[in-house]
Parts: sequence; C-alpha cells; structure tokens
Amino acid sequence: MPVRSSKFSLSAKGFTDVVDITSKVAEIVSSGTMDDGIATVFVPGSTAGVTTIEFESGAVRDLRDAVDRLFPRDIRYDHNERWGDGNGFSHVRAAVLGPSLTIPFSGKALLLGTWQQIVLVDFDNRPRRREVIVQVVG
Amino acid sequence: MPVRSSKFSLSAKGFTDVVDITSKVAEIVSSGTMDDGIATVFVPGSTAGVTTIEFESGAVRDLRDAVDRLFPRDIRYDHNERWGDGNGFSHVRAAVLGPSLTIPFSGKALLLGTWQQIVLVDFDNRPRRREVIVQVVG
Amino acid sequence: MPVRSSKFSLSAKGFTDVVDITSKVAEIVSSGTMDDGIATVFVPGSTAGVTTIEFESGAVRDLRDAVDRLFPRDIRYDHNERWGDGNGFSHVRAAVLGPSLTIPFSGKALLLGTWQQIVLVDFDNRPRRREVIVQVVG
Repeated sequence: MPVRSSKFSLSAKGFTDVVDITSKVAEIVSSGTMDDGIATVFVPGSTAGVTTIEFESGAVRDLRDAVDRLFPRDIRYDHNERWGDGNGFSHVRAAVLGPSLTIPFSGKALLLGTWQQIVLVDFDNRPRRREVIVQVVG
Repeated sequence: MPVRSSKFSLSAKGFTDVVDITSKVAEIVSSGTMDDGIATVFVPGSTAGVTTIEFESGAVRDLRDAVDRLFPRDIRYDHNERWGDGNGFSHVRAAVLGPSLTIPFSGKALLLGTWQQIVLVDFDNRPRRREVIVQVVG
Repeated sequence: MPVRSSKFSLSAKGFTDVVDITSKVAEIVSSGTMDDGIATVFVPGSTAGVTTIEFESGAVRDLRDAVDRLFPRDIRYDHNERWGDGNGFSHVRAAVLGPSLTIPFSGKALLLGTWQQIVLVDFDNRPRRREVIVQVVG
C-alpha cells in the first residue's frame, strides 16, 4: 500500500503563532521510499491551520496583523458566551484558513517555490503542544 | 486501483448554513477496504465550501457573523448586475473558503481532533440540495 | 506507481489576476491512464493561490474587489519595510487563499460543478510567468 503515515509535535504559542514546519515535512518525504506523490499536512484540532508563506519576520507579522484586523479578538463571540474559554476568535480564524494542505513531491523533494515555506498557524489563546500529521501517498 | 469514489447528498439552507458531514465521511472511510490513506471531500458548485470547525452552535454562529461582516450581502456585486440572481456574495465567499478538504485516515479512522468536525458551508441565497464527493485513496 | 506529475506555465498580470486553468487540468487528467483518482493543483511561490469560482467577469471582479477591500494595498506592511519590493499585500493574500487544491476525478473527468472553474489567482504586484503543478494520483 503506497501510503506512509507520519507525525511530529511542536510547541506553539497561540495568537497567530506562525511556525515553519518545512524541514520536518521535507525530511519525512525524503526519507521514504516513494519518489513521486503527494504529502497531506494536517493539523488535528479546531484552533489551528496550515498554509504556505515566505517565512520572514515581515510577512509573518503582516499575516498576523491582517488576521487581527479582520477577525478581532475583542468583539462578541457566541462561543465565548457558551463555553467561557475565550477563544471564539481562534475557532473562526482556523475555520477560514483550513487545517489541511496537500503538496506534490518529485524525486523525494517537495515542489515548493524557493521562498515558500509550509507553516502551522496556531490561533489559540494559550501556548500548547500541537501534533502535525503528514500522510504521504505515492 | 486503490481509489474509491463515493458521494452523498444533503439539504442545505444557504446563507452560510453550516452542515456537519463528519459521520457521513467517517462511515465511507470505515466501510472501505483501505486501512490508511487520505479522503478528499469535495463539493461541486461555486457557492459552497468545505472546512472543519468545532461544531457547536456558538462557533457556528461566530463563523456566520464573521462571513457576513467581511463579505456583506448588501454591497454592490458585479455578478448581480450581470446575472440578476442576487448571489454575488455567495460566489466570493465560496472562492475564499475553497471547495476541497483532504483528511488523512489510519486504521480506517479519520485523524481529526476530538472537537473538530468536517462541515459543508452553503453560501447560496436559497435552499438547495448539495452533492458531496468523497474520494478515498489509500 | 500510480502517480503522474505534470506541469504547465502561463502568463499572469498580478494584482489579483484570476486565470482559468480548468481546461489545462482537465486535459492532463483525460490524457492519462488513470480512470479514477485525485488531481492536486499546486502553485509554487508565495504570492499566488488556487481555488474555484464561476469564471465570469462579474464574479471575478467581485472577488478582486473583496480582496482589495479586506487586504488593502496602501496600508503599512512590515515585509515592504524590510525588503522594499512593495508586495507585502500579495504575501498575505496568498497565505490566506492557499496554494493547493485537490479535485476528484472519475472516468478521466474532473468532478467539478457545471459553473465551477479552477483558477490560479496571481496576487503579485507585477506581471510574471507562473508554473502550475498537477499531481495526479489514482
């Protein structure tokens, strides 16, 4: 069966913490037996997402600012009224960004752009461990 | 060929109706012959999307409110001027959320978080039937 | 190995240029040997994204307007302060839309809706060539 399931964990700080996970994903792909295929990067949980960005502090800050501007922390969230955990903004942000990203690879190398990194974006309102699943199909 | 194509349909009300489809997708994966792989959940059509959220009424309401705030119904949409069907806001919302979600599974179980549900989000401006495609590769 | 890697290139104008790539992707799928599977459409680079939309000039304009409204060009971007290339807005927009889309196919035909087209959205601030990768697994 041409599927390999891997995972790793990391510490994230929440509040749109952007964590570069490119090398972790690339290592999983390069150490496997499949030359060509796709890698699905998935974060379990409903307060984080996965995407790509040029991972330099300016663009990361700009993403954080845009998220804060469009999905403010300090407006009323029904989730907070019901559950009291104060992370209603986190849930909305994560649902819009999405928890999954599928990246093609060839010759055991991810077909990313030179300035394109895979990132986990942690939207929660507290630091926590995150598990990331990488499902390689090829 | 390690691919199985399934589909199901559901009734959606439009106007950012968020429908929990987790059990439908999970049943397709658990009833198949593949132990490990990925399931791509896809909604045909240009006025709906797929993502994950903690499916409780507060977070669902918060997502709906955020979408209404960021992509208002009552501003000018060029699509409406041309076609008169009044769902210009639906098209923009669906394009941003995206129609596709790929979820890893292992041991015939989706690798979702405990509080993470798969949802179809119907952005149209009227009730309608929706077909959802689940393509399982493993 | 049931994987086929293809790519094509196109000219894009930037500034939320929306380019219909449906026929290119459909041709790759229909000319292959796999009947059923998934096609992952991926754009390398950190200033473009992939999604679906009803490709008519009204909806395309509406998407462009929404992007300009939500992620303005003329506010401060930290990326611009650091690198001087003036495309901070492009990076944020691309990170939110995402670079990847996975579409199921059956009988060598993409399972898209009738009015649903696959589009590359170029967010950069200048015209450029874009490469699009289509990884077919089935």
